[in-house]
Amino acid sequence: MKIGVLGTGMVGVALATKLVELGHDVVMGAREASNEKAAAWKAKMRGKAATGTFADAAKHGTLLVNATRGSGSIAALDLAGGNNLNGKVLLDVANPLDFSKGMPPTLTVTNTDSLGEQIQRAFPEVKVVKTLNTVNASLMVMPRSLPQEHSVFLAGNDNLAKKAAAALLKEFGWRDAEIVDVGSIQASRGLEAWLLLWVSLMGALGTPHFNLKLVKAG
Amino acid sequence: MKIGVLGTGMVGVALATKLVELGHDVVMGAREASNEKAAAWKAKMRGKAATGTFADAAKHGTLLVNATRGSGSIAALDLAGGNNLNGKVLLDVANPLDFSKGMPPTLTVTNTDSLGEQIQRAFPEVKVVKTLNTVNASLMVMPRSLPQEHSVFLAGNDNLAKKAAAALLKEFGWRDAEIVDVGSIQASRGLEAWLLLWVSLMGALGTPHFNLKLVKAG
Repeated sequence: MKIGVLGTGMVGVALATKLVELGHDVVMGAREASNEKAAAWKAKMRGKAATGTFADAAKHGTLLVNATRGSGSIAALDLAGGNNLNGKVLLDVANPLDFSKGMPPTLTVTNTDSLGEQIQRAFPEVKVVKTLNTVNASLMVMPRSLPQEHSVFLAGNDNLAKKAAAALLKEFGWRDAEIVDVGSIQASRGLEAWLLLWVSLMGALGTPHFNLKLVKAG
Repeated sequence: MKIGVLGTGMVGVALATKLVELGHDVVMGAREASNEKAAAWKAKMRGKAATGTFADAAKHGTLLVNATRGSGSIAALDLAGGNNLNGKVLLDVANPLDFSKGMPPTLTVTNTDSLGEQIQRAFPEVKVVKTLNTVNASLMVMPRSLPQEHSVFLAGNDNLAKKAAAALLKEFGWRDAEIVDVGSIQASRGLEAWLLLWVSLMGALGTPHFNLKLVKAG
């Protein structure tokens, strides 16, 4: 599949690399086409992937991934351009975390709104699916690195888009029973607010290599 | 143990009932000693428990439980009185949920603060332990009603108080491996913010009878 990954940080690199390994045709987008992290990633991919601006990546992909920093996501998507985004599925894996005031980080939007909802409102023709933001970058693409089943969530207004997202998660190694649909894009509030607990757990456990499993009555 | 349970709602009743069943000497406290829900509960306990004001319950208990509505918790504890609270362990199981604007509920405090922290600041001599607020009332006292292990969290500044809380959780049926210390009372932010995801999951699953299990690397 042609996939555009917006963002060159740890999450963007982890996702784009896995997608290339899976045989997808990936363009990693950055603010500047000359972005050094993107160039370093492209070199590692040995000709199997391309880089460009946010607009280049968005134009290329039939499915898009927002892996930009949460505080810059709307600006990045504005640069990508509505014409390149409209009608497409956008996996929003970003978190609106603010580390500027030290630890623990806070959220720049929460409680009565969320980044997922902000993106959906700003780009009503885009099929936004909030997913994967609840786990760290390596777990996103290596779910089997934990010894037991655990859960990943989908929130979005378009059921077909959520199915497309689930199909990609399964390519990453997530199992059907691990993929939990939590409802409309409004459920991004909970998926993003979970980061506040995630940060405390990371501190208590001393590792980001953990996740939660949904346990239901039998 | 002498235990004071502040609050007469579903959570207060579930916890107080279980504590009586376990043989504890319980006083359920309400704003008014004549509270009808408390009286109905006392009648069901057939002389094995007592009721009174918040101050009566707080004075009685060597360990206390805040099961009041989050929006009224500080006021309830003010009525209980610092003299009756100071030096004691207070399990804070309340959530600062606001349903006044319809669904989904929002939090009256979150992100940069939490109810757990507000209580600890208002009563610095009280050993506040945030716990059990992440599951519904029946799961609090019937953890084995789910088919697999799942997790419950402790946040607080006093390690002995967290041990006392863990001991009580074990009496309820929680297993050692299920009880996760997430750090200081500041971690209440994450434990309370988790409710935003809990509410979405309850809607998606159609039942409040679920929980999360922490899954770590082996």
